[in-house]
Amino acid sequence: MSSKRMIYLPLGGAGEIGMNAYVYGWGEPDKERLILVDLGVTFPDMDGSPGVDLIMPDMSWLIENRDRLEAIFITHAHEDHIGAVGRFPELVKDAPVYARAFTAHLAREKMEESGLDPRKVKTVSPWPEVVQAGPFSIGYVPVSHSIPESAGLVIDTPGGRVVHSGDFKIDHTPVVGEPFDEDVWREIAKPGVKALMCDSTNVFSRSQGRSEAELEPQIEELFARAKGMVVATTFASNVARLKTLAEAAERAGRSICLLGRAMRRMIEAGVETGVLTGFPRVISPEDAQSLPRENLMLLVTGSQGERRAASAQLARGKYNGLEMKEGDMFLFSSKTIPGNERGVIRIMNQFSEMGVDVVDEHAGFYHVSGHANRPDLLTMHNLVDPQMVIPMHGEHRHLREHVKLAKEQRRQGIVAVNGMMIDLSGNAPSVAEYIETGRTYLDGSVQIGALDGIVRDRIRMALNGHVVVTLILDEHDEPLGDPWCESMGLAETGRSRTPLVEILEADLGQFLGRASEKTLADDDKLETELKRIVRRVSQDEIGKRPEVTVITSRLA
Amino acid sequence: MSSKRMIYLPLGGAGEIGMNAYVYGWGEPDKERLILVDLGVTFPDMDGSPGVDLIMPDMSWLIENRDRLEAIFITHAHEDHIGAVGRFPELVKDAPVYARAFTAHLAREKMEESGLDPRKVKTVSPWPEVVQAGPFSIGYVPVSHSIPESAGLVIDTPGGRVVHSGDFKIDHTPVVGEPFDEDVWREIAKPGVKALMCDSTNVFSRSQGRSEAELEPQIEELFARAKGMVVATTFASNVARLKTLAEAAERAGRSICLLGRAMRRMIEAGVETGVLTGFPRVISPEDAQSLPRENLMLLVTGSQGERRAASAQLARGKYNGLEMKEGDMFLFSSKTIPGNERGVIRIMNQFSEMGVDVVDEHAGFYHVSGHANRPDLLTMHNLVDPQMVIPMHGEHRHLREHVKLAKEQRRQGIVAVNGMMIDLSGNAPSVAEYIETGRTYLDGSVQIGALDGIVRDRIRMALNGHVVVTLILDEHDEPLGDPWCESMGLAETGRSRTPLVEILEADLGQFLGRASEKTLADDDKLETELKRIVRRVSQDEIGKRPEVTVITSRLA
Repeated sequence: MSSKRMIYLPLGGAGEIGMNAYVYGWGEPDKERLILVDLGVTFPDMDGSPGVDLIMPDMSWLIENRDRLEAIFITHAHEDHIGAVGRFPELVKDAPVYARAFTAHLAREKMEESGLDPRKVKTVSPWPEVVQAGPFSIGYVPVSHSIPESAGLVIDTPGGRVVHSGDFKIDHTPVVGEPFDEDVWREIAKPGVKALMCDSTNVFSRSQGRSEAELEPQIEELFARAKGMVVATTFASNVARLKTLAEAAERAGRSICLLGRAMRRMIEAGVETGVLTGFPRVISPEDAQSLPRENLMLLVTGSQGERRAASAQLARGKYNGLEMKEGDMFLFSSKTIPGNERGVIRIMNQFSEMGVDVVDEHAGFYHVSGHANRPDLLTMHNLVDPQMVIPMHGEHRHLREHVKLAKEQRRQGIVAVNGMMIDLSGNAPSVAEYIETGRTYLDGSVQIGALDGIVRDRIRMALNGHVVVTLILDEHDEPLGDPWCESMGLAETGRSRTPLVEILEADLGQFLGRASEKTLADDDKLETELKRIVRRVSQDEIGKRPEVTVITSRLA
Repeated sequence: MSSKRMIYLPLGGAGEIGMNAYVYGWGEPDKERLILVDLGVTFPDMDGSPGVDLIMPDMSWLIENRDRLEAIFITHAHEDHIGAVGRFPELVKDAPVYARAFTAHLAREKMEESGLDPRKVKTVSPWPEVVQAGPFSIGYVPVSHSIPESAGLVIDTPGGRVVHSGDFKIDHTPVVGEPFDEDVWREIAKPGVKALMCDSTNVFSRSQGRSEAELEPQIEELFARAKGMVVATTFASNVARLKTLAEAAERAGRSICLLGRAMRRMIEAGVETGVLTGFPRVISPEDAQSLPRENLMLLVTGSQGERRAASAQLARGKYNGLEMKEGDMFLFSSKTIPGNERGVIRIMNQFSEMGVDVVDEHAGFYHVSGHANRPDLLTMHNLVDPQMVIPMHGEHRHLREHVKLAKEQRRQGIVAVNGMMIDLSGNAPSVAEYIETGRTYLDGSVQIGALDGIVRDRIRMALNGHVVVTLILDEHDEPLGDPWCESMGLAETGRSRTPLVEILEADLGQFLGRASEKTLADDDKLETELKRIVRRVSQDEIGKRPEVTVITSRLA
C-alpha cells in the first residue's frame, strides 16, 4: 500500500485559459488507475492558428495509457471543458463519460455529432451521491458559475481526498441553479483534504466578486430607457443572464426572440433538463418582424464578435429577416475575452454607423464574472482547508500568483503546468515526471499536430507570399525553355517596374544556362539554388523574401 | 468673395484611431488652396494585413491636387501623425513640412531615411507666432499630451478661424513641456471660432483626466519596494514618463540603461532640441552588466508586446547581454492598445515563467492617458467656444458620441469620416462631396492598395492552404503524363489515408483522360475544371477547400 501514490497531471488548461484536461491517478507508479476531468477545446486565431477549426490538447499520453483510464468526468458544459468530448473516440471507447444532467445533455449532442454513441454519457446526481470508478469515488458538488450545473469534484482514493474546484464563483443568488453552499464545503473538508486544485482565472481581481442577481435592477433600468428595438448578447450558455435579460424585457412589455443556433440550443437544454424554469415565452423571427420595434428584444449569439454569429450578421445587415435601425439599442452583457477586442470593436462601429446605441459592460453594470475573485479564492481555500493548493485554469502568471496567495496563508503550493505530473502523496507536492504535451488542431476534418509545420507554412505564406517555379527538363537533363514562375500574394511589380515574375524567369533562365550537368541532374541542388535566386531577386525588387515551391518535371 | 468656401476633408484618422491626415481648404469650390495637417501611419495585424509593414492613408486625391497644396503641418511626433512623412515624395516635393522643434527633428530623420531632403522640414515657433501658407495663417498652440511639444493649430483664413485640437489632454503639471494653458485658448476664442476639430479618443472615459505628475509618488513607492533589477517599458516617445521613471530610479539608487533603438533616439531628440533637461545620466548595456541588479533600472521599448522590441526579447532571453531573473520586476507603465493584448500577455507569461514580478497599469497607478477625457473635452469646447464641433481622431463610435456631447451643449456637430468633404462656410457643417479614400500598404519596399487583392490572397492561403497543379501538354494538346500536385499548408493525408496529392493527381489524370479536345485546347477552361476538382477532392479528403494555382505548360 505504501508504494502506491496519488498523482495529478494537467494535459491542458494549466498555463493557459482554455482546453482543460486534468488527469488524476492512484496506484503503483506507472500503473496508476486514471480518471480524466474535463476534455475541452480552445479557439484558434489568425495570429497563431489561421484556418484552424478547433484547438485541442494533445492527448497522446492518455491514449497510450487508455487501458488504465477508468472514466471521464465533465465539470460543466463550457466549450473549454466539454468541447473535445466527441473528438477522441479512443478515450471514450471503454471509459464512460459522467456529467450532471444539463452538461450530459450537451455532451450527448457532441457525441452524436461525431458519430459516437451518446449512451456512453451517464448522468450523475449531485453530492452526497458519488460515482465509483476503479479506486476512485467521485462526488459532484454544485458550485455557482456562469452556466447551469457547474460542479466541483470531491475525489476520494485510498490515498486521501482531493478537491477539484471546477470553474466557480461564490454566488448566493445565482438566478439559475444552486447557490454556493459554504456548509457543504465545510462538511467535505472535515475528514481532511490533501489538495485543492483551484480555478485561477480571476486571481488578479482584488475586489470581492459580485452576484448575478445584482444585475437585474440595472438591466431593468436600461430597458426602461430604451426607445427602439433592444438587442442583447451574452454567452449562450449563460442561461441565468438570458433569464435576467428576458425577464427584464418582458417587464418592459417586450416580446423575446432568440437568434443564433447556440442561443436556441442552450435554452432548450435548460428547459429539457429542468434547470431553467419560468423563462418567458419566445417568439419566432417571423413573428418578431410583425411587432413594433419598441415591443421587441432579441437575444443573440456572438458576444465575442465572431464573424458568423448573429451579432456580427446584424452589424452587417439583415439576419433572419430582422435588422437594426437608428434609435435601437445593442447591449453587450458580456466581457470581451483578450484577443477578441478587434472583432467586438468592429461590430460596435458598424452599429454606430447605423445609429444604434451600443452599451457595453462599462463599470460592470451589465455583466459580472463567473469566476472567483482573489478574496473569494481565499474563502474557498479556507473552507476546504487543504494541505496543498495547486492552481489550475490559468495562464502561467495566474498560477504563479495563486501559489503566492496560498503560501501567504502557509499552505503548500506548486505551479504545475501542462505535462507536469505531480505526486501528491507526501506532505508537499513534488514533480514526479514531465510528460510531453501540446496542442492538436482540428483542421477541416483532419487532426494535425500544432508542430507538424502545416500551419507554420500557412503563416509563412500569409507573411511572405508564395512563388511557384516550374521547370521542365528533357531526357538529357536539359531545360525545356525557361522556368515558369507564378506568384500569389505578392506585388506584381517593384523597383524596376518590370513584372516580378518576368525578372524571376529571366534570372532563373540565366542560372540554368550556366548550371553544370551535375547540378541539372540533382533535384535537391536545383531546388536549393532556384529558391535562393527567387528570394534574392524578390528581396531586391519588392523587399520581400517569399516562400518558394519548385516543381521539377523530368520528361522520361 | 462670397463664392469662396472653407472646407475640411479627413483622409485618415476619422472613423479609426490611426493614420491621421486632415485637409483644410479655402477658395472657390474645387479650386480651394489646401493645407494638410498630419501624415501618419497605422500598424498592420495578422487578422487583416498579414506581412504588411505599414498602413498609410490613400493620398491619391491630394496627390492629384498637389498643385493646390500650400504646406503640410505636423501637430506632434507620434507615428500615427508623422509616420508617413517620408512616404509620399509627391506631396513634399513642393510643399514645406512645418513642425515644432522636437517633431521637426524626428520628421527630418524620416525624410532622410526615405532619401528625401530633410531641409524641407521647417521648425516653427509656438503661438502667437504664425506661419503663412497661401490664404492660411497657422499658429501652433502648445498642448499637453504624451509626447513633447504636441500642438493644437489655430487656422485662420478670410473665411474665419478654425481650431484643430491635435491630440491633447488638460494637464497643468505635465513633467516635460508646457502645461495646458486655458488663458491662451480664451484669447484664441475671442474673435470667434467657426469650428473645432477635436480629439475624440477618450470620449467614453467619464472621469476627469489625471496629470502625468500624479504618477511620481506611486512609481517611487514601487521602486522602493523592488529587490532585484527593475525593467520598465512605456512608449519611447513618452519622454515625460521616461523622465519620471528615470528620476524615481535614480532616487532609489539605481543607474539607468536604455534598451531599444527608439528609446535612445527619443531621449536624444529630447536633449538635442532642448525639450528634455535634467534627465539622469544613462549607462551603456556593457556597463550595466557589471552592476549589481538592485542598482539597475532598464528602460526598454516594446510596451505593446512587439515581437522584435526589447521587452519581447528580454522575455525570450538575453538582450544586449542583459537578462531578467527571478526576483526582478517588470513594469508596464503603459496601456495596451486594443488588438495588442495577445502579444502583451505572452510577454507577461514568459516573465512569470522566469519568476519575474510583472506590474501593469492596474488601477491607473503607473499610467495616465495622453488624451482628454469626456469632462476635459467639454472644458475644451467651452474654452474655444466654437460654432461647430467636428470630432476627429476616433473610430465611428467615438465620433458619434462626441457629436452627441457637443449637441447636448447646443453646438452644431457632424460625424465626418474619412472621405467626407465638409463645407464649413454656413452656420452648420454640411457635406460638400464624398472623396474616394482608403488604405495604402507598404509591403516590403512596394506600395500596394489595400484592395489590390494581394493581401487578400495571402489571407486566403493562410486560411485554406495552397495547392499547385502543374500540367504539361504536348504539341497536340495531349497531356504528358498525369498532372503534378504540390500542397503547402495542408494535411498530407485525410479520410482515405492515401496522400492527398496522390489522390488529386489520380483524379485529375482521370479527368484529363476523359476531357474533350476542345477542353484540352482551352487554358481557361482547363484551369476552371482542374481547380474545381482539386477543391472538391480536398473538401472530401481533409475538409478544406484550398487556394489552387494551375500551371499549364504547352510544349511548342
